Amino acid sequence: MKVLQLENTNEFTPGVMKRFFLVEDSENFKIINFNLDAGVTFPVHSHDLDGELSIQVLEGEGFFLGEGDAAIPAKAGDLLISQIREPHGVRATTRMRILVTIAPPI
Amino acid sequence: MKVLQLENTNEFTPGVMKRFFLVEDSENFKIINFNLDAGVTFPVHSHDLDGELSIQVLEGEGFFLGEGDAAIPAKAGDLLISQIREPHGVRATTRMRILVTIAPPI
Repeated sequence: MKVLQLENTNEFTPGVMKRFFLVEDSENFKIINFNLDAGVTFPVHSHDLDGELSIQVLEGEGFFLGEGDAAIPAKAGDLLISQIREPHGVRATTRMRILVTIAPPI
Repeated sequence: MKVLQLENTNEFTPGVMKRFFLVEDSENFKIINFNLDAGVTFPVHSHDLDGELSIQVLEGEGFFLGEGDAAIPAKAGDLLISQIREPHGVRATTRMRILVTIAPPI
């Protein structure tokens, strides 16, 4: 068992998305913290694999993105649950921190 | 794909732990929000099953509990990563909200 602290990965870079792998050595899940600068888009994508993911907004606000032009308002405390096969993405309005859990990991 | 809002489960009951299943119909993971009133303990337990879990502190503070008398300070933004087989628990000092992800689900 180990303890991770999200305060240790609270870093932003202007105009881009930073990525911190919190758990990447597990057979069960992968947990990643992405920090998006204001205005940054995590492009809609999908993978042809079985599995599911959650995207939890930790701080800030923006939109969860889906197929086509789907954009669902997203703020701290909101979670998107999606199949890995389903198109998914995020657009940050403000600086935005998200926690992504992928199970099984890809 | 669906969106869940943690603000919808922000409920406490004096002296106990409330449990809200956010995702319980998935083959990939289970996601549960527990809200512990101040002073409440989620007793140390384990299951003889393969798999892993994360316990993320959303609000408040207390301790992650482990084997024996292990007690690790836990505050908002801290995550415990544990095998399902490893003894794990939580003790709330203040009112405390935690998000538990179990993969694969049990």
